[in-house]
Amino acid sequence: MILNKEQITSHNQSNFDKHDQSFDFLANNLTNKGHDVENILKKVGDFQVAIPSWALGAGGTRFGRFSFHGEPGTLEQKIEDVGLIHALTKSAGAISLHIPWDVPEDAEKIKALTKSLDLKFDAMNSNTFQDQPDQKHSYKFGSLCSTDDKSREQAIQHNIDVIRLGEKLGSKSLTVWLADGSSFPGQNNFQTVLKNTQDSLQQIYKTLPEDWKLFIEYKPYEPNFYSTVIQDWGTSFMLANECGPKAYTLVDLGHHLPNTNIEQIVATLMMKGKLGGFHFNDSKYGDDDLTVGSIKPYSLFLIFNELVYGMENNPQNPYPAWMIDASHNIKDPLEDLMQSLEAIRSSYAKALLVDQKALREAQKNHDVTLCQEILQEAYLTDVRPLLERARVSNGGALNPLDTYRHLEVRKKLVDERGKHTMATGL
Amino acid sequence: MILNKEQITSHNQSNFDKHDQSFDFLANNLTNKGHDVENILKKVGDFQVAIPSWALGAGGTRFGRFSFHGEPGTLEQKIEDVGLIHALTKSAGAISLHIPWDVPEDAEKIKALTKSLDLKFDAMNSNTFQDQPDQKHSYKFGSLCSTDDKSREQAIQHNIDVIRLGEKLGSKSLTVWLADGSSFPGQNNFQTVLKNTQDSLQQIYKTLPEDWKLFIEYKPYEPNFYSTVIQDWGTSFMLANECGPKAYTLVDLGHHLPNTNIEQIVATLMMKGKLGGFHFNDSKYGDDDLTVGSIKPYSLFLIFNELVYGMENNPQNPYPAWMIDASHNIKDPLEDLMQSLEAIRSSYAKALLVDQKALREAQKNHDVTLCQEILQEAYLTDVRPLLERARVSNGGALNPLDTYRHLEVRKKLVDERGKHTMATGL
Amino acid sequence: MILNKEQITSHNQSNFDKHDQSFDFLANNLTNKGHDVENILKKVGDFQVAIPSWALGAGGTRFGRFSFHGEPGTLEQKIEDVGLIHALTKSAGAISLHIPWDVPEDAEKIKALTKSLDLKFDAMNSNTFQDQPDQKHSYKFGSLCSTDDKSREQAIQHNIDVIRLGEKLGSKSLTVWLADGSSFPGQNNFQTVLKNTQDSLQQIYKTLPEDWKLFIEYKPYEPNFYSTVIQDWGTSFMLANECGPKAYTLVDLGHHLPNTNIEQIVATLMMKGKLGGFHFNDSKYGDDDLTVGSIKPYSLFLIFNELVYGMENNPQNPYPAWMIDASHNIKDPLEDLMQSLEAIRSSYAKALLVDQKALREAQKNHDVTLCQEILQEAYLTDVRPLLERARVSNGGALNPLDTYRHLEVRKKLVDERGKHTMATGL
Amino acid sequence: MILNKEQITSHNQSNFDKHDQSFDFLANNLTNKGHDVENILKKVGDFQVAIPSWALGAGGTRFGRFSFHGEPGTLEQKIEDVGLIHALTKSAGAISLHIPWDVPEDAEKIKALTKSLDLKFDAMNSNTFQDQPDQKHSYKFGSLCSTDDKSREQAIQHNIDVIRLGEKLGSKSLTVWLADGSSFPGQNNFQTVLKNTQDSLQQIYKTLPEDWKLFIEYKPYEPNFYSTVIQDWGTSFMLANECGPKAYTLVDLGHHLPNTNIEQIVATLMMKGKLGGFHFNDSKYGDDDLTVGSIKPYSLFLIFNELVYGMENNPQNPYPAWMIDASHNIKDPLEDLMQSLEAIRSSYAKALLVDQKALREAQKNHDVTLCQEILQEAYLTDVRPLLERARVSNGGALNPLDTYRHLEVRKKLVDERGKHTMATGL
Repeated sequence: MILNKEQITSHNQSNFDKHDQSFDFLANNLTNKGHDVENILKKVGDFQVAIPSWALGAGGTRFGRFSFHGEPGTLEQKIEDVGLIHALTKSAGAISLHIPWDVPEDAEKIKALTKSLDLKFDAMNSNTFQDQPDQKHSYKFGSLCSTDDKSREQAIQHNIDVIRLGEKLGSKSLTVWLADGSSFPGQNNFQTVLKNTQDSLQQIYKTLPEDWKLFIEYKPYEPNFYSTVIQDWGTSFMLANECGPKAYTLVDLGHHLPNTNIEQIVATLMMKGKLGGFHFNDSKYGDDDLTVGSIKPYSLFLIFNELVYGMENNPQNPYPAWMIDASHNIKDPLEDLMQSLEAIRSSYAKALLVDQKALREAQKNHDVTLCQEILQEAYLTDVRPLLERARVSNGGALNPLDTYRHLEVRKKLVDERGKHTMATGL
Repeated sequence: MILNKEQITSHNQSNFDKHDQSFDFLANNLTNKGHDVENILKKVGDFQVAIPSWALGAGGTRFGRFSFHGEPGTLEQKIEDVGLIHALTKSAGAISLHIPWDVPEDAEKIKALTKSLDLKFDAMNSNTFQDQPDQKHSYKFGSLCSTDDKSREQAIQHNIDVIRLGEKLGSKSLTVWLADGSSFPGQNNFQTVLKNTQDSLQQIYKTLPEDWKLFIEYKPYEPNFYSTVIQDWGTSFMLANECGPKAYTLVDLGHHLPNTNIEQIVATLMMKGKLGGFHFNDSKYGDDDLTVGSIKPYSLFLIFNELVYGMENNPQNPYPAWMIDASHNIKDPLEDLMQSLEAIRSSYAKALLVDQKALREAQKNHDVTLCQEILQEAYLTDVRPLLERARVSNGGALNPLDTYRHLEVRKKLVDERGKHTMATGL
Repeated sequence: MILNKEQITSHNQSNFDKHDQSFDFLANNLTNKGHDVENILKKVGDFQVAIPSWALGAGGTRFGRFSFHGEPGTLEQKIEDVGLIHALTKSAGAISLHIPWDVPEDAEKIKALTKSLDLKFDAMNSNTFQDQPDQKHSYKFGSLCSTDDKSREQAIQHNIDVIRLGEKLGSKSLTVWLADGSSFPGQNNFQTVLKNTQDSLQQIYKTLPEDWKLFIEYKPYEPNFYSTVIQDWGTSFMLANECGPKAYTLVDLGHHLPNTNIEQIVATLMMKGKLGGFHFNDSKYGDDDLTVGSIKPYSLFLIFNELVYGMENNPQNPYPAWMIDASHNIKDPLEDLMQSLEAIRSSYAKALLVDQKALREAQKNHDVTLCQEILQEAYLTDVRPLLERARVSNGGALNPLDTYRHLEVRKKLVDERGKHTMATGL
Repeated sequence: MILNKEQITSHNQSNFDKHDQSFDFLANNLTNKGHDVENILKKVGDFQVAIPSWALGAGGTRFGRFSFHGEPGTLEQKIEDVGLIHALTKSAGAISLHIPWDVPEDAEKIKALTKSLDLKFDAMNSNTFQDQPDQKHSYKFGSLCSTDDKSREQAIQHNIDVIRLGEKLGSKSLTVWLADGSSFPGQNNFQTVLKNTQDSLQQIYKTLPEDWKLFIEYKPYEPNFYSTVIQDWGTSFMLANECGPKAYTLVDLGHHLPNTNIEQIVATLMMKGKLGGFHFNDSKYGDDDLTVGSIKPYSLFLIFNELVYGMENNPQNPYPAWMIDASHNIKDPLEDLMQSLEAIRSSYAKALLVDQKALREAQKNHDVTLCQEILQEAYLTDVRPLLERARVSNGGALNPLDTYRHLEVRKKLVDERGKHTMATGL
């Protein structure tokens, strides 16, 4: 199913007057405070976040999976789903594939489909945290870290294969996320598995095309774990340094111990030129993969405050890759993703409103009260009219969720695909 | 130092036009969405939060204390400080005393001063977590929980004395917070100290005047602790039930283990008619006593969402006592308190904007996407014009912080009191 | 497969001399210190822990399941597996069934098999956290808490059915564990779902036979959750009180927020006569369901210290139900369970060695150094010879793991059952 | 007060027979299992842990300080206290000074006293986390990270002064611990303060004598904090690398977020040759500074397992500096320190008992059950007779605590020093 522009713009009409009033009032206020509204609009409009192919169906839990109706059953349908979100939001201009779930039968056809929907291929994702049915050597006891040469070589080769496939599609990066670790003290020799992981990553790195990047994720724990090999940003950063200049750390919001100051990690990595990418989600207790901004929106704003600062002041750091990495168990995945996208853009827009000059001055004077006021002045501003305007200017929906429901997209997907389809992957 | 109304209103003039525009725009929007703006204004304007007497000076840390200039050195000066905040914000209409730090020499004079500043006496606070210079029996190994009869009796009597003093001043409640607990496994017999605490509270409860309430705080830990006797709301709730209908649980935001769902505790207590009071602050790691709303403003909003629901739907629960319980180490305490007050009122106002009827309907339909939209619609609204209007209507400052600085209040306090005064207490 | 006693005792012979020496040395030491070794041996020997039927196969994770060879495919085989563990350890004298996974075709035959292996039926477990293939109404949005009457009634009836089945088998208790909760703020009205849960539990309670108990588990979170309905012991305790005297709280070690003082919860519940049962496991980060004692053995000892105290001093509390609730992903489940059993018995034995009289005295004198010494004196004692003796006296193996491997039990199970069997359930 | 050897050895006599029996039994067992008991005895006997000068008096909390009787009032008395502990335990052969609390009036005299007690000077500790009475520029808003040049230069110079003083005394390292950070979002620019800290450390590093080391501590938070500049090992490691080969990371057990896998950090740092030192303590909730081994002794064992492995397999890592960094509020500090020392030595001895060869083999075979058995075999061994023998062989007390009480050391200290002395420093 493909949404055409007319459907969207015609639905926009009904709410346009109200939007205009709100936007004018806000723009006027911001201009009076010295903001360059056009510039902010452009930045927000340009901000694109990748959707991973596995996020388009219902996720599973330990106990089962309540699948959603009309889930995409093929790679083509997954791309179409991202196309739908992008048509409505104009902020989901990329898809991130997961191999082996998304191996295309015909790469050229897939490229053409993707291009027709105005989508790019974001980072490729390898998978060595599961055994595939046809797999020779098991990852039960680790993959890139494995002390079994054959499992380890197979995992390295899989990553190289993913790079090769990504080249065909036009992707420019590989994200490596490992569930390698141990469930019990003594199970692994920490130094051995870290060394193996470093060697494996170096071998993968060697095959990386000149214009590619390698993103190394970290994560402190998985359920039923005692340790993970790449437990924190420090380990990822160390490994990226051992690989070389094209290797970077990837930060996933949910992959931290309780109370971690994530925005400080972001600042440190950008200062060192090593923040490669970002996975968005939210959480209350652990790695809950909830809708972005649904639990701790102020934290997200503080992180964007560092990202905005880094993007403006750290030429040593490349423009990061952005992706949503949430799980959708009880909401329509497409609705959920649109809520996430809006939360991301909202935080970005608010961070752009921070008066950096005044903040620098207040910091210099140790006027802590004022520092807080400056951040909150930006955060408390209702930027929704701005997000709407940026979207509409790019041809998207004033209110994507509302339009999605009005156009009965899910119903049409079920009609097309059937009720009990099930997305491959997670 | 006492602020007169003219100083405040004259400073308001300069910003009134801008405020009017913003308020009208917001009020118009809210009215169109079906909100009763007058009613919301009244509720927000009526909302009063107590300031504890110990919050007016700089707090200490383990390593020392950077004292602030012009701190109040006497009870009268503390009351004056609260009066200043109240004159500016019209939302700090009560002071909460801490005994023995605030024993008045002349109760009637203190009552008159307090009344003249339009302040009430909120809950009285006893102190059995420190040894006072003249104290006969030490609380080193506990107070109300103590296995030493003399320490325990002294602690009970102290609480009774605090009630008697409170009666003279016109307070209507006693808050009991204990640092009773242990540093090491085995140090205490858990059952013995819990039983002792229950007995002690019951003895104090017996002397409570008919129209008083007893608030029992809980807290999972202190630095250098292995256990606290009243470690969680369950223990406090159990003790309150053992005392009787005038005993309630008091919730302090900072007194929880990492990731606790505090709003759910609030809902449960209100349903059971046992939420007596609330201490506001914020925290990143532990019981950090930071400015309200400075770290997790959305959590505060979710808590207020439950409070608003409970105040409207739980006649079994009395109107709760509200107090700020933060520590001020690097900001001017008065500025810090004004920021806290604004964050509280902001959360309250936003919670009042939640469309309860639509939420109930969405919950019934399991429309989880919509439930989230409804909460966020309220939260994302910029309610600052509303807070301003409610304040100005009551005679306060449009922008309290700005007015405070414009009127050079701190400078005048230093002139009056001297630079190196030091608040008694913490 | 059934182990006969001769196989076990014959393998014991080879290590008996060494055991005798160690035991005599330890028993002599303990006797000199005033311990009644015979009494301790009897208590340890009598201590029986239930094995849940779902623990006998490999557990799953979010990403897949590495199944183990020779897993039991039927209820009979599960019972046989527990029989094997019990024959070796003489401490796993009960099985805890999970419905609908374990509905017997012929209850009498199952009872006879169980009896022949010297096993009892521990608590019955209902399952309303998953949708079964044939189920009319979904639990996607809750079961006992559901706002959909039909889902709720179905969940209540299921629990009643489980009780009826349990009566046929000779079980005496029902454990209710719920995954009821929400993923997002606003999704549930906290008060409504708590009231519904209370009503549902009361309806189930009403059908409970006179000599049965109802165990109510609590748990702060599940992955992808924002709240659970029964989030802590306080909520469970409150619900148990609302049900009546046969309702109790059940404590699962893994179901707590970081840093919770669990031993204090145990002490409080026993003092109030409301500790119904205990689920053993261990964890590093969250609810990891690792082998008991593999991560925090001293915590387990401190918990047993409270359990031993409560069993001796709290006649108001019934003898608790004991169960292992761990997940087995990378070890042979039977080996894993034997390690858990040994850790439990070790902690129990050490807790029995605590010199309660000396501890009471040291507590009274606030001799905190000595309190710690007394606990550690017990904990540091190597009680393994004592555990061996208690086991051998009851006809078990000196070293169960060693015997299990020597007798090639797993190999024989694979021969009997085939390599790729898969246990029903989790 | 100085203990002479006769007092100690004469008290040993009474318990010698019992010790001999226990030791012989244990040594025999260990020898049979293939251990080289003499070698283990030597290693344990040689293991020396520094006592910091601030640990000899009662510590403070937020609310006050219950001081202990007979606290050392001068540097000489602090050294004497360490001498007492060392005489009894033969494992506290060094003192770690804190400047400016411990500036000696006569360095040579102090050196002579220290030598006479068989003590060395461990790492020097600078203090820029407090303002001293005579200090020109405040550290209220940071020291080495400060944006105020004068505060920063003063802090750098202080560290250089401490190095110079350390050279006079014969110390060989400087430990830098900072409370630099912020209480509120926006207060600091993360990149600026990190850069400043790096610059400052580099300036200090430049003045380091050739044979000295610089230890950089990290810590995620302090009470009332939102961020610390050196929040984790990754940041410390990065800074150490920026300084040079003589700069190392220092790990303090209490300075971690909840659930951190510290043993893995230890392994990583040793593999990279960057583990400089270790501060021992224990905690239940945060940075509680409790007696070593009083809360999580198995974690300590796992850490020592990595330390032992690293000391044997990582020639790239220097021998680490060991120090106790606990706080003593309710126990006699000397007793508390002796308990800590014993817990450290116990963990070290048990780690030495791990059968590394068998463990390597089991890891290779993914025999996870056996890996756990091997670690626990070592951990469950009661090594107390071994610790006694190592101590007695070096001239120490069989049972230091018992001897300390028998000889009424504290009473004599009170007689000498008076009841209400108070240690300088914390």
